[in-house]
Amino acid sequence: MNKHILIVPGDGIGQEVTAVGKKVLDKIAEKFGHTFSYDEALIGHVAIEATGNPLPDESLEKMRKSDAVLFGAVGHPKYDNDPSAKVRPEQGLLKMRKELGLYANLRPIKLFDELLGASSIKPEILKGADILFFRELTGDIYFGEKGRKNNGDTAYDIAEYSRYEVERIARKAFDAARTRRKKLCSVDKANVIETSRLWREVVQQIAKEYPDVEVEHQFVDATAMLLIKDPRRFDVVVTANLFGDILTDEASQIAGSMGMLASASIGDGTGVYEPIHGSAHDITGKGVANPLASILSAALLLDISFGMKEESELVISAVDKVLKEGYRTRDIADAATTPENMLGTAAMGEA
Amino acid sequence: MNKHILIVPGDGIGQEVTAVGKKVLDKIAEKFGHTFSYDEALIGHVAIEATGNPLPDESLEKMRKSDAVLFGAVGHPKYDNDPSAKVRPEQGLLKMRKELGLYANLRPIKLFDELLGASSIKPEILKGADILFFRELTGDIYFGEKGRKNNGDTAYDIAEYSRYEVERIARKAFDAARTRRKKLCSVDKANVIETSRLWREVVQQIAKEYPDVEVEHQFVDATAMLLIKDPRRFDVVVTANLFGDILTDEASQIAGSMGMLASASIGDGTGVYEPIHGSAHDITGKGVANPLASILSAALLLDISFGMKEESELVISAVDKVLKEGYRTRDIADAATTPENMLGTAAMGEA
Ligand SMILES: CC(C)[C@H](C(=O)O)[C@@H](O)C(=O)O
Ligand SMILES: CC(C)[C@H](C(=O)O)[C@@H](O)C(=O)O
Repeated sequence: MNKHILIVPGDGIGQEVTAVGKKVLDKIAEKFGHTFSYDEALIGHVAIEATGNPLPDESLEKMRKSDAVLFGAVGHPKYDNDPSAKVRPEQGLLKMRKELGLYANLRPIKLFDELLGASSIKPEILKGADILFFRELTGDIYFGEKGRKNNGDTAYDIAEYSRYEVERIARKAFDAARTRRKKLCSVDKANVIETSRLWREVVQQIAKEYPDVEVEHQFVDATAMLLIKDPRRFDVVVTANLFGDILTDEASQIAGSMGMLASASIGDGTGVYEPIHGSAHDITGKGVANPLASILSAALLLDISFGMKEESELVISAVDKVLKEGYRTRDIADAATTPENMLGTAAMGEA
Repeated sequence: MNKHILIVPGDGIGQEVTAVGKKVLDKIAEKFGHTFSYDEALIGHVAIEATGNPLPDESLEKMRKSDAVLFGAVGHPKYDNDPSAKVRPEQGLLKMRKELGLYANLRPIKLFDELLGASSIKPEILKGADILFFRELTGDIYFGEKGRKNNGDTAYDIAEYSRYEVERIARKAFDAARTRRKKLCSVDKANVIETSRLWREVVQQIAKEYPDVEVEHQFVDATAMLLIKDPRRFDVVVTANLFGDILTDEASQIAGSMGMLASASIGDGTGVYEPIHGSAHDITGKGVANPLASILSAALLLDISFGMKEESELVISAVDKVLKEGYRTRDIADAATTPENMLGTAAMGEA
């Protein structure tokens, strides 16, 4: 097959890990006789530096025209510590999600057996945990009106969901549950907020179309607790944008490290594939970032956007093999990791 | 001292555990020669059943007139599964918080050494963890305008914070940090939402009055991860109402069980003391609920509202002793718990 892939490294370690993800795509093309062509585009802090705009029109155009996007990360401490900054790297990310209609963010949380020891959670609690998160990605408090009043002394953010927005993400989650253990947990805060009450109402309705899927509703606070207490009770989890942001970062501990987790953002057009970790400026440029999340994002890309199941599985099994052989990056190393087995970003990619 | 304490058991296991908390207060009065008088008031589902109102005026009057409130829990599954219910138990709780001006919710998260094994987190990660959460309790998306538009097809919730609301909770948190390890972590989502940007701005300003306290700002998603990965890095944590709700439930796993955690809600008038666990209708009436969170809430009440440090410490050391002797309720039992040491709610209270 001929496919055109856009590489969007963004900020911080996004640059380093995406370069490795691309190499893996190259290797797959070579091995399976595909032709992948590439282009690059700017987003985030690097885009602001170059053009003043966190998502230049040119980048958006390129995204729309490509068959899939391999994404890095955005963010920079400079803006974080300046609450009054008007232009921010994250605006580029949010605009991309909105403009490409990427309403469903899939975050598979699965522990490679070899990493059982790397988590702060007890192995006997973790073993066998396998959760697929569906985080809604283009609504909620992220995209509602926000601003100041009373001379800047009061700030507000509006969270909003329409029935249609909840329906489409719920259907995706139910469809996925059908192909797995047939359990769906919908997470909200329906005892307090109205968007959550609409959310629960719609999920209850859609559930009628999936009588073979067992549904439970949990509050977000209880879920934050249950994820740690008993991760194996979850199969597919569907939730709103903000709750999904918090819960999937938390759940990264189930996978041993945030450096292992890939995500797919899909919707009406081009799909975007990215690690769930951020730009991590504290380790940028040191060559120590874990590239496995970017590599696993490439695997998701092959599977979901190109329908290349075999190619995708080969990438995943390569990651598994490398871990079995004892190779580790710093974030997933343990007492058993020998100095020779401790790899940097590029070396882990080669392995 | 003469003190008047209002007992507000609320729903589900609230009834059972609050009865035990009250007994402990009685015992303390007897031992130290205080005179505690009591009254009771309704809230939540039981109040709706009796009066149609989740917080009858009479209850609120009694709260205002008492020196402290020992609170149970509110909630009932009946409303949770009916997103369209207009009257809900939680409205009583939220109205109480607002009317009494309980803007600061303190949640100390500390592991009793004997419970190191009860958590799903590894003992070596947990050992020594000691976090004091300050959750803002009368603002945010909990209290902003909420509703429907487009014939009910779109739901919205407005999150709001004023400078003053952030200032007063920040000061309380900084003051507490001063009496502890002098570290404060302020949690927000300032890279996306405006209320968080105001939050960060104000905390940065107040920080100047506390040059001896080391301040860091973390995003809520990262915090949800760090709490599990490395709980010992936190001393005092201050955050908004919704983020605090989620993070403190998650952090309950650090204390071994949600059944161990007490909280104090304080502000302009009467203080309210309650377990952080909910009404737990699945175990209501079975006599197995862990009363230690209510007992520890009583200890907080003695300390914070009555300034009775010695009395408070005696209660805490009694809990410690009982755990050392091996007594457990079901939720905190482990392989070493003998059948004789497995206690129900009342027996644990007696112990
Ligand atoms: C960088 C930030 C805006 C973003 C989000 O909150 O969505 C990130 O945390 C993520 O999860 O992709
Ligand atoms: C019952 C509910 C409204 C409440 C909240 O969200 O504040 C509870 O979860 C709590 O933490 O006290």
